[in-house]
Amino acid sequence: MLGFQLRHFSVSQSKLFFQSSKTLVFPLLSTLGIMFTDAKSQLRAYNASSSEPSKLLFRQLFENESSTYTYLLADVAHPEKPALLIDPVDRTVERDLTLVKELGLKLIYAMNTHVHADHVTGTGLIKGKVPGVKSIISKASNSKADLPVEHGDKIYFGNLFLEVRATPGHTVGCLTYVTGDGPNQPQPRMAFTGDALLVRGCGRTDFQGGSSHQLYNSIHSQIFTLPKDTLVYPAHDYKGFTVTTVGEEVLYNPRLTKDEETFKNIMENLNLEYPKMIDVAVPANMVCGLQDLMKKPSEASPC
Amino acid sequence: MLGFQLRHFSVSQSKLFFQSSKTLVFPLLSTLGIMFTDAKSQLRAYNASSSEPSKLLFRQLFENESSTYTYLLADVAHPEKPALLIDPVDRTVERDLTLVKELGLKLIYAMNTHVHADHVTGTGLIKGKVPGVKSIISKASNSKADLPVEHGDKIYFGNLFLEVRATPGHTVGCLTYVTGDGPNQPQPRMAFTGDALLVRGCGRTDFQGGSSHQLYNSIHSQIFTLPKDTLVYPAHDYKGFTVTTVGEEVLYNPRLTKDEETFKNIMENLNLEYPKMIDVAVPANMVCGLQDLMKKPSEASPC
Repeated sequence: MLGFQLRHFSVSQSKLFFQSSKTLVFPLLSTLGIMFTDAKSQLRAYNASSSEPSKLLFRQLFENESSTYTYLLADVAHPEKPALLIDPVDRTVERDLTLVKELGLKLIYAMNTHVHADHVTGTGLIKGKVPGVKSIISKASNSKADLPVEHGDKIYFGNLFLEVRATPGHTVGCLTYVTGDGPNQPQPRMAFTGDALLVRGCGRTDFQGGSSHQLYNSIHSQIFTLPKDTLVYPAHDYKGFTVTTVGEEVLYNPRLTKDEETFKNIMENLNLEYPKMIDVAVPANMVCGLQDLMKKPSEASPC
Repeated sequence: MLGFQLRHFSVSQSKLFFQSSKTLVFPLLSTLGIMFTDAKSQLRAYNASSSEPSKLLFRQLFENESSTYTYLLADVAHPEKPALLIDPVDRTVERDLTLVKELGLKLIYAMNTHVHADHVTGTGLIKGKVPGVKSIISKASNSKADLPVEHGDKIYFGNLFLEVRATPGHTVGCLTYVTGDGPNQPQPRMAFTGDALLVRGCGRTDFQGGSSHQLYNSIHSQIFTLPKDTLVYPAHDYKGFTVTTVGEEVLYNPRLTKDEETFKNIMENLNLEYPKMIDVAVPANMVCGLQDLMKKPSEASPC
C-alpha cells in the first residue's frame, strides 16, 4: 500500500463531502497553498476542489505494429483538464501528445498496466517532452516509476479516479485500472485490463512470472465481479474489436468460461512463438522505455 | 425522395407523440396487425411502440487490410433489439455476425456510406446469411440496394433513428448518417461520415465523380453545422485514431480549415496512387459485393 493515509476533499454536484482514502495526487497543491511534509512518499492525495461535476473525455488510440491500444482519459469539467495516458507506445508518442495539446488537456500521468513484452512504452519519451508528468506502474513489477502503485490505491485526475486492481497472471505485476464507483463517475464503469482479459481471450502466461492459476483467479475475482455492463478495454486486439463488456466475457470468453483445470490445460498448450520484441522491450520497459537504456545508468531519469 | 409520406408513432419518456416524416421501417408490422398497401415502395415507415426509452448499443470494429471501420448500432431497450451495420467489409462478415448473435441483436439493415473503392462491402454476404436484412445506400450512387435513400430520410431502428445527409464530393453518392436530434436520442450526437470527413483529413476527390468543390461545401454545410460536441466516426483511419469531434475538425483539420480555393489546390496536388482494389471493389460494390459478380446476372440477388 502507499504507506500513508490522507484525507482529501472533492466537490461534486455542488455538495462538499469528505472522503478517507489512499489516493494519488494531481499536483496543483501550491495553487491552493497546501503543503505536505510526508517525506516518505512523493505521492500526494488530492482531488481538486470544483463546483462543477466531473466530465470524462475518453479516447481510444491504436498502434498498428504491436496492435496496442493506448487510452487517453481526462476530466474536462475541471479547470485544468487533468489527463492521463494508459499504455502509451514509443512509436506513437508524437501523435498522442499532439492530441493532448489540441484538446487543451494537462497531462499528469503516463501509466502502464504492466511491463510489456511486445512494444516499448512511451512513458520515458513523454516524461522527457512534458515536464511534470509522473509515471505509474505496479510496485510488484519491480520497474522504475515515479509512483509505484498497489491493489486498492486510487488515482485521481480532477474529480474522476481510477481504482487499482492487482490482476497478476500474464505477468507478476499486471494491474487493471477501473473507473470509480461513486457520484459523478462514468456509468457504465470502464475497466482497462491490460493483457489480463482480452476480447474473447486473455494474455499468455508462459513468461515474465506468468501463471495460468493466478490469471484465472485474477480475472474471476477482480474483473468478472464487476457489474455486467462494465466496458472492458484491453491493451491489445488482433481481430478489430475495440471493446467488450464483463457480461459478454462471462458468457462467451472461450477460455475463461471453462473450469480452472481446463483453462490451465488450454494455456499450457498454446504453442505460441517467442515474442519478437521481448528482448528489447522488457529491459527497456523496466526503466520506462528504450531511450533510458541508451544512457549511462547515472544519466537515466527516474521514471 | 422515398416517394411517400407516412405518419409514424413513437413512445419515448412514457409520452406518446406523433411525428410526420419520411422514415424506413423495422418490419414487425404484422405482429401489430398493421398492413401497408402502398405497392410503389418496399419501404415501410414505422418505429416500434414501446413504453421503454431507447438505449443505444454501439460498437466500432476495424478491418486491418483496408483500415476500414464498421459500426454496429442497436436499440437494446426495444424488445427485438433491432440493429444495423454501417460499412461492413466482406472479410469480416463472420466476425460481425457472430457478435450480433452473441449480443442477442436482430440485424435489420446493412448500410453503406458510399460505393467503396478500397474494399468489397459485406452487404451481399450478410443478406445471404441473415434472411430479412435490407441493404441501404444512396439513390445517387446508382448502386443496387433494397432501400435507396436520399438527403432528409430517416432510418429507424427501434426508437432510435439516423438522419440521412447527402455529403457528395469523395463520390457523387456519399452520405453521412447522423444520430437523431430529439428525446431519447444519443447525446452527444454521432456522425458516420464515411470518406467525406476523416480524422484530421478527408477523402480524395479524383475519381468516382469526386469533386473538391462539392466535398468542401458538403462538409461545411452538412457536418460542420452540427453541434461542436458531435462525435465523428469515419469509414477509415490510418494513424490509429478512432473518433474525433466536429469541434476539433473545425479547429484542426489541416484541409478543411483552409478557404475553398486553397482546399481545392491541396486536393488537386495529393498525387495519390491509383487505389489497388478499385477495379475489383467498385464493380462489386455496385451490386452489393463480389459474391454477386460471380453469378450470372439472372442469378444475382437484389441487394
